[in-house]
Amino acid sequence: MRMTNRWLAAAWVAAALTQAVRADEGMWLYSNPPREQIRAKYGFELTAEWLDHLMKSSVRFNSGGSGSFVSEDGLVLSNHHVGADALQKLSTEKRNLLKEGFHAKTRAEEVQCVDLELNVLQSIEDVTSKVNAAVPPGATAEEAFKARRRVMAELEKASLEKTGLRSDVVTLYQGGAYHLYRFKKYTDVRLVFAPEQQVAFFGGDPDNFEYPRFNLDVCFFRVYEDGKPAKVPHHLAWSKSGAAPGELTFVSGHPGRTSRLLTVAELEYLRDTQFPYVLEMLKRREVLLTSWSQRSAENGRRAKDELFGYQNSRKARDGGHAGLYDPAVMQAKIDAENTFRARLDGRDEFVEAKDAYRKIAEAQAEMGKIALQARLIETGHGFASDLFGIARKLVRAGDEFVKPNGDRLREYAEAGKESFEMDLFSDKPIHADLEILSLADSLTFMAEKMGAKDPLVQRVLAGKSPRARAAELIEGSRLTDVAERRRLYTGGASAVAASKDPLILLARSIDAEAREVRRRLETLDEVKRQGHAAIAKARFALEGASNYPDATFTLRLSYGVVKGYEEGGKQVPPFTVMSGLYDRAASMEYRPPFDLPKRWMDKKKALDGNVPFNFVATHDIIGGNSGSPVVNKAGEFVGIIFDGNIQSLVLDFAFEERQARSLSVHSAGILESLRKVYGAKALVNELVATGHKH
Amino acid sequence: MRMTNRWLAAAWVAAALTQAVRADEGMWLYSNPPREQIRAKYGFELTAEWLDHLMKSSVRFNSGGSGSFVSEDGLVLSNHHVGADALQKLSTEKRNLLKEGFHAKTRAEEVQCVDLELNVLQSIEDVTSKVNAAVPPGATAEEAFKARRRVMAELEKASLEKTGLRSDVVTLYQGGAYHLYRFKKYTDVRLVFAPEQQVAFFGGDPDNFEYPRFNLDVCFFRVYEDGKPAKVPHHLAWSKSGAAPGELTFVSGHPGRTSRLLTVAELEYLRDTQFPYVLEMLKRREVLLTSWSQRSAENGRRAKDELFGYQNSRKARDGGHAGLYDPAVMQAKIDAENTFRARLDGRDEFVEAKDAYRKIAEAQAEMGKIALQARLIETGHGFASDLFGIARKLVRAGDEFVKPNGDRLREYAEAGKESFEMDLFSDKPIHADLEILSLADSLTFMAEKMGAKDPLVQRVLAGKSPRARAAELIEGSRLTDVAERRRLYTGGASAVAASKDPLILLARSIDAEAREVRRRLETLDEVKRQGHAAIAKARFALEGASNYPDATFTLRLSYGVVKGYEEGGKQVPPFTVMSGLYDRAASMEYRPPFDLPKRWMDKKKALDGNVPFNFVATHDIIGGNSGSPVVNKAGEFVGIIFDGNIQSLVLDFAFEERQARSLSVHSAGILESLRKVYGAKALVNELVATGHKH
Repeated sequence: MRMTNRWLAAAWVAAALTQAVRADEGMWLYSNPPREQIRAKYGFELTAEWLDHLMKSSVRFNSGGSGSFVSEDGLVLSNHHVGADALQKLSTEKRNLLKEGFHAKTRAEEVQCVDLELNVLQSIEDVTSKVNAAVPPGATAEEAFKARRRVMAELEKASLEKTGLRSDVVTLYQGGAYHLYRFKKYTDVRLVFAPEQQVAFFGGDPDNFEYPRFNLDVCFFRVYEDGKPAKVPHHLAWSKSGAAPGELTFVSGHPGRTSRLLTVAELEYLRDTQFPYVLEMLKRREVLLTSWSQRSAENGRRAKDELFGYQNSRKARDGGHAGLYDPAVMQAKIDAENTFRARLDGRDEFVEAKDAYRKIAEAQAEMGKIALQARLIETGHGFASDLFGIARKLVRAGDEFVKPNGDRLREYAEAGKESFEMDLFSDKPIHADLEILSLADSLTFMAEKMGAKDPLVQRVLAGKSPRARAAELIEGSRLTDVAERRRLYTGGASAVAASKDPLILLARSIDAEAREVRRRLETLDEVKRQGHAAIAKARFALEGASNYPDATFTLRLSYGVVKGYEEGGKQVPPFTVMSGLYDRAASMEYRPPFDLPKRWMDKKKALDGNVPFNFVATHDIIGGNSGSPVVNKAGEFVGIIFDGNIQSLVLDFAFEERQARSLSVHSAGILESLRKVYGAKALVNELVATGHKH
Repeated sequence: MRMTNRWLAAAWVAAALTQAVRADEGMWLYSNPPREQIRAKYGFELTAEWLDHLMKSSVRFNSGGSGSFVSEDGLVLSNHHVGADALQKLSTEKRNLLKEGFHAKTRAEEVQCVDLELNVLQSIEDVTSKVNAAVPPGATAEEAFKARRRVMAELEKASLEKTGLRSDVVTLYQGGAYHLYRFKKYTDVRLVFAPEQQVAFFGGDPDNFEYPRFNLDVCFFRVYEDGKPAKVPHHLAWSKSGAAPGELTFVSGHPGRTSRLLTVAELEYLRDTQFPYVLEMLKRREVLLTSWSQRSAENGRRAKDELFGYQNSRKARDGGHAGLYDPAVMQAKIDAENTFRARLDGRDEFVEAKDAYRKIAEAQAEMGKIALQARLIETGHGFASDLFGIARKLVRAGDEFVKPNGDRLREYAEAGKESFEMDLFSDKPIHADLEILSLADSLTFMAEKMGAKDPLVQRVLAGKSPRARAAELIEGSRLTDVAERRRLYTGGASAVAASKDPLILLARSIDAEAREVRRRLETLDEVKRQGHAAIAKARFALEGASNYPDATFTLRLSYGVVKGYEEGGKQVPPFTVMSGLYDRAASMEYRPPFDLPKRWMDKKKALDGNVPFNFVATHDIIGGNSGSPVVNKAGEFVGIIFDGNIQSLVLDFAFEERQARSLSVHSAGILESLRKVYGAKALVNELVATGHKH
């Protein structure tokens, strides 16, 4: 193309803007929001009130996701796929809520969920100096880890006792900072509305992480207190128009984990060791459950939720792994690390940071030697069975809960005891056939990885084939009975020691090795944490507080604009509309997962096909953000995050906004569906009435 | 249960029979049939004429399967899944023969298949002494291997020149014997009839290796000579009644590979190293292709055949692997080996055999060190692309075909040249998108396994991500064009050396390493072969010629009775009937792969629901036996093998007949389908007329 002066000028301006304007990067702490960036780029001021309102309207699902209050009566909106676990637990062979959906037309019809806990962040306190002060000078890594764990448990307990709020000390900046997060906790959570999974997850695994999309990925819950709908002090008003092209919007949610501050040595470990291992495990389980699901409709129902989890993780990790193999990503990481390390050269105050890179690399290499065993026997990849998980909890509860709070394994801390018990005594259905299938395969996996002649493997298999051993363990166990779990839990270590339950015996027989490998890993992790703290300190000194930490499933604020992107030479528009759902279904001949619920087929003509359905934006998000509200400058709800496109998977390691996009359900699409397809008048009135009040 | 005297007597007789009567074990050579066993147990005499007729009525599909002549006009019956490759190659985006089926109502409508070769065994000659004589005394393993390869190529070439028949020297008893097999070869093979895959493979992967079954897994071809249907001297008559419960029947086919004579060291290697690796690779590819297939109907069509292959292999190996983890199987192997080795003790003539166990174990361990690299760069698991396969063939053809016949790599031997060219110049469709997907994933797999920093991996990736590199290689290659392949093939090494095709350059750049690792593997394999030959010699000396060798995709005779089995406390009957097909489809709500073709739904009432459809028998079979005819004592066709049940997968390592069963389509079910569902009058008349003549 011949460039005219005008073209040249435009190109120059564009280049200048690229230089000057910072990307929409960052998963920001509410205690350190990107005020200047947003003021400079968008001329918008993040006030303390605006932030406090959004923070207290944001909800965390402890099952792994985000949500928000959307009415003063405690109505919570999240994704269908975040609620799927709850829907599965409420389902029976006769009534499949995942498939059929659910609609409580009155509050009396709202159904209480099985062990679902929601948290709402109330305050953030920086306790970095308190945590660090607890580590004696000259402490070994292991001593430091223990000291830190003890002081964190003490801080949590003291805060819980003082405020009555769930209190978690969270580690940020890879150990650069420690913050105390206090949450209001809701444990009486009831299901209000869920669409059919067919439309919530229309396109299923094939369309997962893809765009354009047509998903009504929403689910409504309500929090109760004292048996009544909770009156919540903060909730989001519903925007009249919803998100518009080019509009600045915000995401408030709980990105689970990113790895942007990892060193090159750690990234290489991920690329070369951890991702290949995890992907192998996920693909293996995906094939196992897919194959079993296809044998009967009932098998399919039982495995559906777990299978979806594997497919989702597999696709996400395949994408992230591809990112790590991209020299453009990895070379940028190498260059950035070299540049930063060069800035540390010759400055005495950075000696520790400089040395940290070596220490981290060495600790990573040591971790690599024991990671496999840890995954198999401690994380439990060798014992993929719900009942085994219960057996281990019982075995450890007996030992841990009698220890001082600060000496316990992290998940047995006093502050988490209530959640722990809720989970342990859950009466969610456990299917013996699926348990045997899954345990047999994971025992085989363990035998493959550790070797059939490994003494631990031989002890676990007890002279039987994995299949026979799994059948014997599951069929012989009484742990399906919640009363038996209660008996063992209440009886403590002595009751557990007296138990002849084969799964209890198994969990006990490997507990020493499992604890030991975990202790070694945690010690090495502490070495890395100290290294990262030193690097973080140097980074603060050189760069100031202009940064956000890696994601840790704590509440974060992201921002970005509603915007399409270019892919394979074509421009992908920012919105889809409701008629697109029907077009895609027809083009796929309505074959599952591209079939539509009967209700949707019937109501096709009643819908306005031009209403926006899904949209993409440049938000910096990651897994865990699912269900996060998208709000406009007025703080109104304009959409709900439900996915990222395939190009967004690299966000785990580095931000980019050329193609990476968040995917949301548009607020207008939600209302149109509730009104025209489901006739959910009361629900719509609650949402819209709320909107009009603000 | 209280046992009466009558019960006791019956039980004693049964026990005595179990002791006295040999199991229906064995995949017997036609040159050493189980005459005595069958005479003793069934009072039936295998005559030379009977055997010759069955042998010459049996057909080998070089694409990997078995079949038989069922009319004097060269009509061949095999499985639909054996013919699937041919059906796929004849399909287009508009006309999917796999899905829709095919029916040539007249001979003029019969369609020529793309590169399908059928072989019919004519004679067997023992050339063991000639092969062994070619190895100079004191030769190293490598020299012995080369000498053997040279003499085998010479024997084949001489036989081809003398008889005009395809001549293959086959290795039996792990090198204990070498036989020259001469085949009549048919290369003009035309498609006559195929049902819809929905009914041929009803139940798909979920029901694969399961029983009861309801599959019309058949496909008819016809061999032509000089443009006319070939008059074949031998073919099977069609039985009037078909297989009956308890009836003695025979299977004549080509079991691909068994591992029954492997040493314990080799079995442990399979269990601990090879199976885990292969299963990981298969599951990875299954997930890749499943995920891609689900994105669009056209993707699904393109990948269907390959995907089915992976699922099939995965299920088979998962079953076999489970068998190796069964202490009952493995301990029996250990005991048998110890017993046999004890018999060698202190006998000078068995010193070599005794030492062979150590040598085999050492060679196996050495192979283990290079097996991964060999799989990736020589077998091609790192380059899963049809076009790469073509590039390698062109690169090697230029180098190999100029060498003396005996010095060439095995697959470039003169005797196989015609088949080689047929394959190389095949115009079967190659899809760039699938090629890129598949190559990118396999390059990633290679980088994971060999390490991203491995020099060969870096050379292969050329500084790009696997995805970018795969796109560049496939999009830049001209090898989709058959004329370009011809040009390079005809031009030989110099044309190949001058080519700038990126795939040719890639294949050349790794050829030295690939050849070297193969040479080392083949050398170690020769060490093992010599060890097995020594053991085989000792075994002959101690046990006589009462044994059958492991399967090698050469023609074998098995026998057994039509018989149900017990599973999970229930008795599984030997037969299914045609109405069962409709029952299973209904119980699975007609969801794919349990949906039925429209034709079958329409013709439900026209069918006799009581006609036998599938049946099980105690035949000793394995993969490669697919499509084998099942014949009665009169040598008449009574059914066609299409699968084994899940319990039969252990047959790879050891025979058992408590639960392991072959699965066949019943001859009556085939006729009923052809008559009532397809109205295939001419085809039925050809089959039945034939039957009446005999």
